[in-house]
Amino acid sequence: MSEKLADFGLIGLAVMGENLALNVESRGYRVAVFNRTTSVVDALMNGRAKEKNFIGCHSIEELVKSVARPRKIMMMVKAGKPVDELIDQLIPLLDEGDVIIDGGNEHYTNSERRTQYVESKKLLFIGTGVSGGEEGALKGPSMMPGGSPAAWPLVKPIFQAISAKVGPNHDIPCCEWVGPGGAGQYVKMVHNGIEYGDMQLICEAYFLLKAGLGLTNDELYDVFSEWNRGELDSYLIEITRDIFSVKDPDTGNYMVDMIVDKAGAKGTGKWMSQLALDLGVPSTLVTEAVYARCLSALKDARTRASKVLSGPKGVKLVADKKKFVEQVRQALYASKIASYAQGFVQLQAAAAEHKWPLNYGNIALLWRGGCIIRARFLERIKEAFDANPNLENLLLAPYFTQAIESAQVAWRDVVVKAIQLGIPVPGFTTALTYFDGYRTERLPANLLQAQRDYFGAHTYERLDKPGAFHTEWIQLRRQPS
Amino acid sequence: MSEKLADFGLIGLAVMGENLALNVESRGYRVAVFNRTTSVVDALMNGRAKEKNFIGCHSIEELVKSVARPRKIMMMVKAGKPVDELIDQLIPLLDEGDVIIDGGNEHYTNSERRTQYVESKKLLFIGTGVSGGEEGALKGPSMMPGGSPAAWPLVKPIFQAISAKVGPNHDIPCCEWVGPGGAGQYVKMVHNGIEYGDMQLICEAYFLLKAGLGLTNDELYDVFSEWNRGELDSYLIEITRDIFSVKDPDTGNYMVDMIVDKAGAKGTGKWMSQLALDLGVPSTLVTEAVYARCLSALKDARTRASKVLSGPKGVKLVADKKKFVEQVRQALYASKIASYAQGFVQLQAAAAEHKWPLNYGNIALLWRGGCIIRARFLERIKEAFDANPNLENLLLAPYFTQAIESAQVAWRDVVVKAIQLGIPVPGFTTALTYFDGYRTERLPANLLQAQRDYFGAHTYERLDKPGAFHTEWIQLRRQPS
Repeated sequence: MSEKLADFGLIGLAVMGENLALNVESRGYRVAVFNRTTSVVDALMNGRAKEKNFIGCHSIEELVKSVARPRKIMMMVKAGKPVDELIDQLIPLLDEGDVIIDGGNEHYTNSERRTQYVESKKLLFIGTGVSGGEEGALKGPSMMPGGSPAAWPLVKPIFQAISAKVGPNHDIPCCEWVGPGGAGQYVKMVHNGIEYGDMQLICEAYFLLKAGLGLTNDELYDVFSEWNRGELDSYLIEITRDIFSVKDPDTGNYMVDMIVDKAGAKGTGKWMSQLALDLGVPSTLVTEAVYARCLSALKDARTRASKVLSGPKGVKLVADKKKFVEQVRQALYASKIASYAQGFVQLQAAAAEHKWPLNYGNIALLWRGGCIIRARFLERIKEAFDANPNLENLLLAPYFTQAIESAQVAWRDVVVKAIQLGIPVPGFTTALTYFDGYRTERLPANLLQAQRDYFGAHTYERLDKPGAFHTEWIQLRRQPS
Repeated sequence: MSEKLADFGLIGLAVMGENLALNVESRGYRVAVFNRTTSVVDALMNGRAKEKNFIGCHSIEELVKSVARPRKIMMMVKAGKPVDELIDQLIPLLDEGDVIIDGGNEHYTNSERRTQYVESKKLLFIGTGVSGGEEGALKGPSMMPGGSPAAWPLVKPIFQAISAKVGPNHDIPCCEWVGPGGAGQYVKMVHNGIEYGDMQLICEAYFLLKAGLGLTNDELYDVFSEWNRGELDSYLIEITRDIFSVKDPDTGNYMVDMIVDKAGAKGTGKWMSQLALDLGVPSTLVTEAVYARCLSALKDARTRASKVLSGPKGVKLVADKKKFVEQVRQALYASKIASYAQGFVQLQAAAAEHKWPLNYGNIALLWRGGCIIRARFLERIKEAFDANPNLENLLLAPYFTQAIESAQVAWRDVVVKAIQLGIPVPGFTTALTYFDGYRTERLPANLLQAQRDYFGAHTYERLDKPGAFHTEWIQLRRQPS
């Protein structure tokens, strides 16, 4: 063990933790690392960390002693109870003003609670979203830190050094302070929920082009290559393109065709949906995306049902190939705009509830690089919020108003064709019904309120005067003949 | 106060509680009543309960002393903390084997907890769903009791006496034991969630007929009268018909046209959605219905958006009036079948999780009368589960397979027209995409799993062999030119 103390400590050397540690070291910092199974520490020290600026520790005590004060110690362990246990092990070893950082995917309420708890011990806490997968962790993730505001200046240089960079000179870090308490984890959760939506929409486009239009994987590769050069330019479109080029070494078939159509999930999309329901904001895209994964997972049930339930009879797609591909692209783009609009509306509602002073332009900037949803069009979102920090819905920003309106003919046409063909596109359709609902001044909820008042005396509001009113419907109704 | 003890005690004399007490008394039982604001007790005793078989009590102690053992004491108070407080007041006053009954709309986890707690005090607990609004409470609600199984024989005669009756001789009670712990409240929650779906679907039919076809309220009255004589025959269709006949005494206009299109909600639809997400079952109808209420509530935002975002240009509904009305009826019916299918799937998943031995045919029977979703077609659901108690999805029961297939041409046509017109029908569309997803053997989730494996090494399953697999996509991909 060297005499010189480390600038940063990291606990938990699974793939994300190890890659983050290597990333920090690569920016000129000395890093102390610890893992509960200490052979992992040795393997790292004798492997990827060999002759690098690391201190390998075999106990938490050793790790804490190895880091210079005020200490910055990051946990990359399993979310939930393990994090709480680790915090309780760290607290007695730390000194006033030290910073405990949690980089896992946590429900934001846990980060809220931990911020209070750790601060009550005269320490500082950061719960940060880290997005970008293994590769991002190593080369530059998107980071969304929240927690104790006083901790931010202490970790800012390191966090901004290791994060992804964007901008013409590649010098704008995708890492900025998000807000107090659980704000960082909330923003990361919304990032992930938007990712669910993006992935679902891409799958629907794929399904239409494959099952509807009959494109081959080679043709799909070309389509996604083309799309990645335009408005849809993004990491997820890029890796989708790549996927269509990969062959299975075992069979020689395309890999994507060998994979079972059962989607897994880790829970952040579910959290976002459940919280949207609590807030009363219609985040329909992420929820339909989560439900679509649930339905996909019922593979055996679907296989049985497919033998019993039949779809439209004798309907075939009649469309100009090139034109239909372009229409699907527009449908995907318009749906994606609606999805991001919903995500930012949910962020605004959460910020209002928790009194978080969120900067939505900055948040869009955090997602411009490093993370899974990174996309060229986040530039436009940043511009929209910079132009109007109080923008109530992205759809009302001129750029997006124009974009969604010019896509809507194609969008409707694609959804219509999908419905006629019996190809389920829950993401495209819920995006479109959201758009139509949101731009409709008079919805049929007047009837719904009448029903609620009829059977439950729940009262209603009137168009012509303020107040809550109740009608004795049974007395006033026409007597049924 | 009379010498003879009461058969039943009831605490909480708001409209539902008072009506239930009158209902119990009307079946030949002596009822003791108490309300925290005791003037309410006096008002009842001097009013609707005058010269009836009641004991008015001015304290909980007096109420407990007034009821014969084993006591059955029902609480009809505000859900949540007030119920817990009341239980703690009752426990020291009761004797072993007495039954505490909660008749409010509670999150089922509270009933789970209370059953355990009350049983630990050697008492019995029932959490029961009560549906039917004020009128149902008085004349015969649908009741869904769960809790301590040993309590059921004690309350069964009273509960079945006061509940709604169905069947050719009006002698089959809409009240049967549901299951242990929170099972009764869970079933009530699903009832309410299905109610959300039914109401949303009716509103969408209304919107299409009004905004699309231009029907007047008189014509809508006739349409719903007609619908109520067929497969859709139900309480909600009936009251919708009635609503179209009611004029506003103030203005002379139709009442429904004077009501603001902002829907309220009390939370059970939200609970059902959140629990569906936890269970991983796609209950899309209730969730889209909840979100549609949320969107309706944003009236001011919608009004602003309607000035900025425009819909389809120059599209008009071209349809034969009579034919389109019939198509909308079929779309409503098919969507409703999908909605009930989802509700029962969620019940099955919850029953599996909690090891509740639910009888789905009985549950359909409980909803045939008294409650808000009561409908002729629940008869068919009962038959389907009687024929196959392990039916995995209602859509696979021959009656419903045939019904949804024969409706599907009209259903698709209606959704297509709505989309072309820019009329949002999120309920119809999510029902249809669920139907299409459920009957599709191969969904595009293979691509989604490839994406997850690409960026997060989440692994995937293969079609040709068991196990979890990972691909080094970046190494195998075609190098982008």
